[in-house]
Amino acid sequence: MITVSSEISFTEVLDLLGTFAFAVSGIRLASGKNIDWFGAYVIGLVTAIGGGTIRDLLLDVKPFWMLDATYLLTTGAALLAAILFRDKLLKLGNTLFLFDTIGLGLFTTVGIAKSLNSGLPFWVCVTMGAITGTAGGVIRDVLLNEVPLLFRKDIYALPCIAGGIVFFVCYQFDFLVPVVELLAATTVILTRIVAVKFHIQLPILNLEGKGRKE
Amino acid sequence: MITVSSEISFTEVLDLLGTFAFAVSGIRLASGKNIDWFGAYVIGLVTAIGGGTIRDLLLDVKPFWMLDATYLLTTGAALLAAILFRDKLLKLGNTLFLFDTIGLGLFTTVGIAKSLNSGLPFWVCVTMGAITGTAGGVIRDVLLNEVPLLFRKDIYALPCIAGGIVFFVCYQFDFLVPVVELLAATTVILTRIVAVKFHIQLPILNLEGKGRKE
Amino acid sequence: MITVSSEISFTEVLDLLGTFAFAVSGIRLASGKNIDWFGAYVIGLVTAIGGGTIRDLLLDVKPFWMLDATYLLTTGAALLAAILFRDKLLKLGNTLFLFDTIGLGLFTTVGIAKSLNSGLPFWVCVTMGAITGTAGGVIRDVLLNEVPLLFRKDIYALPCIAGGIVFFVCYQFDFLVPVVELLAATTVILTRIVAVKFHIQLPILNLEGKGRKE
Repeated sequence: MITVSSEISFTEVLDLLGTFAFAVSGIRLASGKNIDWFGAYVIGLVTAIGGGTIRDLLLDVKPFWMLDATYLLTTGAALLAAILFRDKLLKLGNTLFLFDTIGLGLFTTVGIAKSLNSGLPFWVCVTMGAITGTAGGVIRDVLLNEVPLLFRKDIYALPCIAGGIVFFVCYQFDFLVPVVELLAATTVILTRIVAVKFHIQLPILNLEGKGRKE
Repeated sequence: MITVSSEISFTEVLDLLGTFAFAVSGIRLASGKNIDWFGAYVIGLVTAIGGGTIRDLLLDVKPFWMLDATYLLTTGAALLAAILFRDKLLKLGNTLFLFDTIGLGLFTTVGIAKSLNSGLPFWVCVTMGAITGTAGGVIRDVLLNEVPLLFRKDIYALPCIAGGIVFFVCYQFDFLVPVVELLAATTVILTRIVAVKFHIQLPILNLEGKGRKE
Repeated sequence: MITVSSEISFTEVLDLLGTFAFAVSGIRLASGKNIDWFGAYVIGLVTAIGGGTIRDLLLDVKPFWMLDATYLLTTGAALLAAILFRDKLLKLGNTLFLFDTIGLGLFTTVGIAKSLNSGLPFWVCVTMGAITGTAGGVIRDVLLNEVPLLFRKDIYALPCIAGGIVFFVCYQFDFLVPVVELLAATTVILTRIVAVKFHIQLPILNLEGKGRKE
């Protein structure tokens, strides 16, 4: 009765890796905050599926995770892995960053393509891509009672927008859809890696006047 | 012009009791936090209808409280009762826990049945039951700027899942639907009462390594 | 490809002013909290479009901002204005309060009219009007990790309800729709101005018993 796809394409493997990485990021942040295993599972799950769920509600289509049990099972695997390999997990910082960034690129591209199929104009599709990639992390931070990371330290949403623009430029030039998607996802991933490596950040907003240091 | 059902069945009485108890739980937690009467009403309301509203948005059906003014009126009655009987309310801890648990059992069962009517597979229905029972409390805690209780102290969601499994086992054996619903709701209620009475809790997640006490 | 309406009516000018004021209120509250420009943009945007988006999801219609790029562009203009005129912005308190109140009146009226078009009973329409006017500010406060202002200091939602009642009384008497909308919006605006000017507030809820000061 549980639907799990039997054939798995390359995109689906990346999708699973992204889901796994997003779930682990939620579970890691839940650790040490007096949250039990079930709570950690839920926070991992909303991190992984939150963005796509908001996108699907806005597009008025059935939320993707209701069609395929893979996302709930992958989050369970992420929780199990986090508990079993806790010592190794903390050393896997760079690998997890890579997974997370691949997930961001893939989720963004999937969000754009799905919105395009709904016949929406490009600026809505780009927004939907960014929502798909980032909203899960925002819900995670709200549930953990923190100001969302998205608004603070990191270049996270701008790569989604860069990827969205690349998507539409390539799309205008009639590239094949898989090529368009690959280029868009690569743009998201590379932009984010470069931004993090070179500590590129947007200015902090401070309207208190010139007297105050920024 | 306000629609209030004229005939009331046993299920509807339980539904009202559950709504009342959930609303009171929101209003009680809002107390003492510099929140005014209207704010307390809104927090009571989202506690009572939040889970069902998210379920209905995910199922793409019209949110249940828009079809029947009872839920908004019941929340108003809960606020009035809380203000009038404030001294007694604090002594009613056990009664309110019972109402709240009955509400949880009933909301979960309603959520499962409604999802089943939408033709969804059983694991989605169980998830929807748990969302219906618990998401209102999560929104309440987010609005009150706290890490949701669901993730912390209490066995709260697992009884919903236990109830969901009982629902589907009985359903497979072709029990009558009202019997299935009664057994599922009873499972939720009893599991929660037993868990609270015997302080059964899930382990807290702590990934900081073995050196640290958990 | 970006859709911006070419002809602009009086209502649309008010709508833009309201959007601008709501966006500025989000951006101002984001300032000084270690939030970057993009984060401030997002918080301004959800403040401006959050209420209408929840309304449209509940009504099961396509979210309004996906049909017209004006809302995203207006929020961009609000961010630019906030950064360029930061010194003046802090002195514009009263002007911004007026914009914000006009926005509240207009958003509420739009929410009621849109729900009425969906054939909903009047008490749902009034609720939808209040949600349209206030939910954006609630999301803003949740994202900034604060207990929503709506629940605390200010008479904010009751003017929406007063406006909603005026809307339906006038509507029953077969006034022309634009007149009904004007009267409802004016009621919201005047009630809020009077409440703020004369420090009219609802009582704070405190159930801790009579011994404690309130």
